[in-house]
Amino acid sequence: MNKIITKSYTQFNEEENFLSETLFHNANGYIGVRGSLEEGVKNGVDTMRGTYINGFYDIIPMKQAEMLCNFVDKKETMLNVADTMSISCIVDGELFDLNSGKVISHKRTLDMEKGITKRDIVWESSTGKQVEINVTRMTSFEMLSLFSIEYKVTALNFSGDIKFISTHNPDVTNYSNPKDPRLASESLKNLEVKDFYLDGKSSIAISETSVSKLRMCSLVHNSLYAEDNSLLKVEVSDIIGMQGVYTAGATVKKGGSTRLVKLSIFADSVRSKDLSGKVLGDLETILENGLDHYYKAQEKYMSDFWTNCEMEIDGDLDMNSAVSFNMYELLQSSAKDSFASIAAKGMSGEGYEGHYFWDTETFIMPFFTLTNPDLSKMLLRYRYSTLSKAKENARLLGHKNGALFPWRTITGRECSGYFVSGSAAYHINADIAYAFINYYITTSDLDFMREAGMEVLMETSRLWMDLGCYDSNGNFCLNVVTGPDEYTCMVNNNYYTNAAAKYNLNWAVKMHDILKEAGFAGEIDKKLSITEDELKSFKKAAGKMLLLYDSKLGINPQDDSFLNKPLWDLENTPKENFPLLLHYHPLHLYRYQVCKQADTVLSYFMFENEQPRDVMKRSFEYYEKITTHDSSLSTCVFSIVASRLGMKEKAYSYFGDSAKLDLMNTHNNTKHGIHTANMGGCYMAIVNGFAGLRVLEDGISLAPSLPDSWNGFRFKLVYKKKLIKVTIDKEKVTVELLEGSSQNIKIFSKEYTLTKGEKTTVKMED
Amino acid sequence: MNKIITKSYTQFNEEENFLSETLFHNANGYIGVRGSLEEGVKNGVDTMRGTYINGFYDIIPMKQAEMLCNFVDKKETMLNVADTMSISCIVDGELFDLNSGKVISHKRTLDMEKGITKRDIVWESSTGKQVEINVTRMTSFEMLSLFSIEYKVTALNFSGDIKFISTHNPDVTNYSNPKDPRLASESLKNLEVKDFYLDGKSSIAISETSVSKLRMCSLVHNSLYAEDNSLLKVEVSDIIGMQGVYTAGATVKKGGSTRLVKLSIFADSVRSKDLSGKVLGDLETILENGLDHYYKAQEKYMSDFWTNCEMEIDGDLDMNSAVSFNMYELLQSSAKDSFASIAAKGMSGEGYEGHYFWDTETFIMPFFTLTNPDLSKMLLRYRYSTLSKAKENARLLGHKNGALFPWRTITGRECSGYFVSGSAAYHINADIAYAFINYYITTSDLDFMREAGMEVLMETSRLWMDLGCYDSNGNFCLNVVTGPDEYTCMVNNNYYTNAAAKYNLNWAVKMHDILKEAGFAGEIDKKLSITEDELKSFKKAAGKMLLLYDSKLGINPQDDSFLNKPLWDLENTPKENFPLLLHYHPLHLYRYQVCKQADTVLSYFMFENEQPRDVMKRSFEYYEKITTHDSSLSTCVFSIVASRLGMKEKAYSYFGDSAKLDLMNTHNNTKHGIHTANMGGCYMAIVNGFAGLRVLEDGISLAPSLPDSWNGFRFKLVYKKKLIKVTIDKEKVTVELLEGSSQNIKIFSKEYTLTKGEKTTVKMED
Repeated sequence: MNKIITKSYTQFNEEENFLSETLFHNANGYIGVRGSLEEGVKNGVDTMRGTYINGFYDIIPMKQAEMLCNFVDKKETMLNVADTMSISCIVDGELFDLNSGKVISHKRTLDMEKGITKRDIVWESSTGKQVEINVTRMTSFEMLSLFSIEYKVTALNFSGDIKFISTHNPDVTNYSNPKDPRLASESLKNLEVKDFYLDGKSSIAISETSVSKLRMCSLVHNSLYAEDNSLLKVEVSDIIGMQGVYTAGATVKKGGSTRLVKLSIFADSVRSKDLSGKVLGDLETILENGLDHYYKAQEKYMSDFWTNCEMEIDGDLDMNSAVSFNMYELLQSSAKDSFASIAAKGMSGEGYEGHYFWDTETFIMPFFTLTNPDLSKMLLRYRYSTLSKAKENARLLGHKNGALFPWRTITGRECSGYFVSGSAAYHINADIAYAFINYYITTSDLDFMREAGMEVLMETSRLWMDLGCYDSNGNFCLNVVTGPDEYTCMVNNNYYTNAAAKYNLNWAVKMHDILKEAGFAGEIDKKLSITEDELKSFKKAAGKMLLLYDSKLGINPQDDSFLNKPLWDLENTPKENFPLLLHYHPLHLYRYQVCKQADTVLSYFMFENEQPRDVMKRSFEYYEKITTHDSSLSTCVFSIVASRLGMKEKAYSYFGDSAKLDLMNTHNNTKHGIHTANMGGCYMAIVNGFAGLRVLEDGISLAPSLPDSWNGFRFKLVYKKKLIKVTIDKEKVTVELLEGSSQNIKIFSKEYTLTKGEKTTVKMED
Repeated sequence: MNKIITKSYTQFNEEENFLSETLFHNANGYIGVRGSLEEGVKNGVDTMRGTYINGFYDIIPMKQAEMLCNFVDKKETMLNVADTMSISCIVDGELFDLNSGKVISHKRTLDMEKGITKRDIVWESSTGKQVEINVTRMTSFEMLSLFSIEYKVTALNFSGDIKFISTHNPDVTNYSNPKDPRLASESLKNLEVKDFYLDGKSSIAISETSVSKLRMCSLVHNSLYAEDNSLLKVEVSDIIGMQGVYTAGATVKKGGSTRLVKLSIFADSVRSKDLSGKVLGDLETILENGLDHYYKAQEKYMSDFWTNCEMEIDGDLDMNSAVSFNMYELLQSSAKDSFASIAAKGMSGEGYEGHYFWDTETFIMPFFTLTNPDLSKMLLRYRYSTLSKAKENARLLGHKNGALFPWRTITGRECSGYFVSGSAAYHINADIAYAFINYYITTSDLDFMREAGMEVLMETSRLWMDLGCYDSNGNFCLNVVTGPDEYTCMVNNNYYTNAAAKYNLNWAVKMHDILKEAGFAGEIDKKLSITEDELKSFKKAAGKMLLLYDSKLGINPQDDSFLNKPLWDLENTPKENFPLLLHYHPLHLYRYQVCKQADTVLSYFMFENEQPRDVMKRSFEYYEKITTHDSSLSTCVFSIVASRLGMKEKAYSYFGDSAKLDLMNTHNNTKHGIHTANMGGCYMAIVNGFAGLRVLEDGISLAPSLPDSWNGFRFKLVYKKKLIKVTIDKEKVTVELLEGSSQNIKIFSKEYTLTKGEKTTVKMED
């Protein structure tokens, strides 16, 4: 029951509808379709009616107000590819619309067990004719190219005609809103329809982007079924102007119904050569198998997913729903091939233009690495495929050596127009390296390190060496970079960045040692031109890396001048002035001790061993007072670190803020898309926070604490191909090895050996 | 002789012509006309054919790649207003053109004694008909609205027809060049012709800007004269399409000539209400007086100018020319009313869009303050008129109190699109305050301080208080600002900025004391809401201002992290990579010890008493090694400070680089306009550098040194309404009071009292 989310509506509300387009979107990591109404909205109503293909983009100019050397002046942007969701339903001559007639009930459902969304409406026409409308939508996990709509109409109190006009419109634009400065003010028309034709009942459109010259294809196939003695009327498919139009109807007896099945199939030239061949082939397979096959496959896929990454909270149904929703959305958002990644808003909307940030590696990937390592590997493979562009990016920024991954991108090009908090966020390099390392530690997949990981560790390390310099005290310094906190930019020795770079450098050396031990040193050294001297220089820089410490306060300063700045008066800042970034010029923000998000605190989660607990505690308390959490990447991190530092109540409070961010629309911008990083962070807040899971080089460990309002919680994780189930309640921690023969694990610092089938139970500690 | 600059050309050369358009432009501070050829150039030849009105602008959008809070998204830009310089000359049926027939000689002249430019051409048509063409252009200092062209043609070896087509084209665009990323890539068409008609022989066009809705008017009046028995043919004036066309001709006997006099008169709605009334009134006056009257008036004006600010170098004719040229250009560039100021490129071209920077107050105004203080007062009045916009600008950047003058502007709005090295250059506030103080010290004009100066000192001081904060050691700090050097941005405690702010704060208190003593405290305190506590806070902050000093190197670090950064390897940087800003991303530049221009070194000129001589000397030597002088504001400052520190040869070498910058086109961009700040700096390098002039609160002093290659030099200055002449030769300094009864002056630290008519002579020191 906790895997089903519903919303009921009384009358049509523009804001609510916009938000529901996000919450009830369908996606499978390849295609994403916003939950916009089949019947559309009235002209002038704000709506983001979009369908997206992950990694399908065009390049658009980004004019710089003042063009300095090597500024980014064009960017990739995810395109709205086609509208195949439109269906008009005419009930005995009257067009169904939420703003006419009478809406008796209207409910939307996200069924995360079946992997579908539904709309259930009872509507009465102005002449009193009542119909029940049931719409089911699915983006198939088995057939990634498939988006299906099943639209069933039942005549409740009359006999008469039900007519459908189902359209296929490839001539679409991206969302724009001239009233909101954060969004595109003009509609983007970068996709040109090159071919549009009928093939039997199917309409097939082939479009091409203006600059990247990518092509995509959408096929739409409609079928009408009459049930319960209803009489089917003739179907007509046609292409009228730039619309594929399918018209059909049925004469339905009272109590009888008719059902439209609309199949949309997508293909793109990033992945396929023969686009029409691909969609026609897929259609044939689908028609052969029948839609029911895909519903069943979807249910099976979801069942496997929930079994694999089971996560249940006992005693808090709402929270359970929220957590399931977050995990489901991550599954929907994540690419299933290595041509794409996970956008900041998944496939749910056009916010951040479909760009991939550090969010993927730092906030989302840990979930997949623990539950579905093959998916993580796919995501890492995507990053690896962009390495040559990261090298080009490094050159543009003046670096002679190494690679610098871009702050935001689709194909690997830097697409940030404001380098101060974009390209200057060098930490993304270490974040990506961290994800490779974490994947290795969790899976022991040395082959992948040999194939890709080592190269990424080397090239990112080389960048740190090119960026850094030794100061007069012999400390290795990283100057003029921007840390995770975007309210302070272009600083020297950002604690997080330096700690992350240190980890990056140390692991380059360590991974080389491991590969050497495995006999791959010769091959790797040759491939990557590694010398002993270079590795020594990494080791030295890591050892001398400046990790700032303020002895007066006993904390780690965020950067070398952070503590010299005055504190922002948060107490007297009007509530309506948050998020600060929308109300204060960056120059003003940069001048104060005020943080948008976890920065030094994040490092305590990722690089916990760098500092003693009391320093971390004091720092946590210091930064807590000056952090606004204006970024959605913040509260989850504060929750994890609070858990680890034994601040149970705080941990739960931060977790609550994180868990329901999108479901409760607490940042008030979910309508533009979900916040995938926060969703991953929410998972970590439970597993790495409450359960105290640590996956380190020398093994895994748990140190659970249970939020007071919970009776317990349980989850599964995969560690080195072993499936482990962890159950925590008020009294005890129970750990069970479900797959694999045996596995060591530390619980509250004591080591246990798990054997398959036997449960290990340890008393909870305070 | 040294006030006449000529260039001779053999054949038409595109680059040379573009450069000459700048060097031979005419301007009077109100209008500026590029020295483009009357006959035009062939299609496709790069030319900036422009006529400008100082302070006449439109507002154009400036799209930000990423729009953060309160980013500047529109800017003012100086418009090309009309083309009234075009004249076609048809020699017995053949159009005169430098690319056809045969150019026997072609010389251009800038006559700085007469205040005119000339072209003298001997040309032979393809049929062997030779003419001499003499063109004289003037922008009148007496009648600021007037631009005149006198175009005389003499038939050298034939008798025949000479025909003129003289046009008036108000339908113009600004310069654009899609090939150069530093210039507008699309032509700006922001001026619409609203009315265009004939009034007798005159064509009158009234145009309006698209956004600012300013209007301007151009009147063109042609007259043809036949001389030496030549026969005048009928004149026709007409408006054809968007062009006013005047056609006339003469039948000329061999040796005879004909002469076209073209008067252009401009008016604008910034200054006048009845535009056509204004231009017609001016025309009447001009026709009554005759053009010769204005030539004479121009010569008188120039003669007075040269007398007032006499500057002669004995023993270096070339340098003398260069220095005269620079002073002349400053006169041409400077507004003669308080509706405008001095653009970075004067009125000579569209570089920097006609914007006013700190250049005016810091680099140019000292020349006028010493030679023509009324002009300085006018320029200060303009700044004062923008104070309310400076307050708005401060609010946009988050300051609750005070005013922040914009980095670049026409009317006082910030027009910088890259705030990192634009709006963040807070030092402009202190630079403007400094100019007010310097004007007061030089003139004792307390009335103006009471009227305007005190308010500027207060509002700029208030900004420093709002910006700054005390650190834990009790030092007053200014964080996240950009100093003069744009190769390091958004730093803390930039030495120059802090020293300048200190001066600003101290003088706010001091000026208040002076006004109090004069009995104006009550009035001023009420007008500006000044309290004793506020003045105390200024004094305290100034006293505690952090002026960084590095005891290891014994120098003043440019900012609090400057010395921690690695040195840029200037030696191994390829020559073609200068200026660095065109070849390296700012993030890269910011990470090194490398300076675009004088920064700390500039403070040693302006705030000399803050540091002992040995610190300044060590700092000078330190910064000298890492300064590229990629900015045109640099070598002049290095010259002054070198002079003061006794580094005679260096002083002269830097001076040489500065003096001929535009005349020799050493920065290779003079074609887009002159570098007015450098021209002012060149003057200071002589007067404040070589002559060692200091004008301080407690009096004036000289400490001259003579460049080895000079026999001597002399100049005049006005100090507290007293005209003083200074003559320096190898043996002695001679000072003479030309106007005023008596004046004290220190020469080589010894005080002398000058009496009118008596010369004071002091032996030169080493």
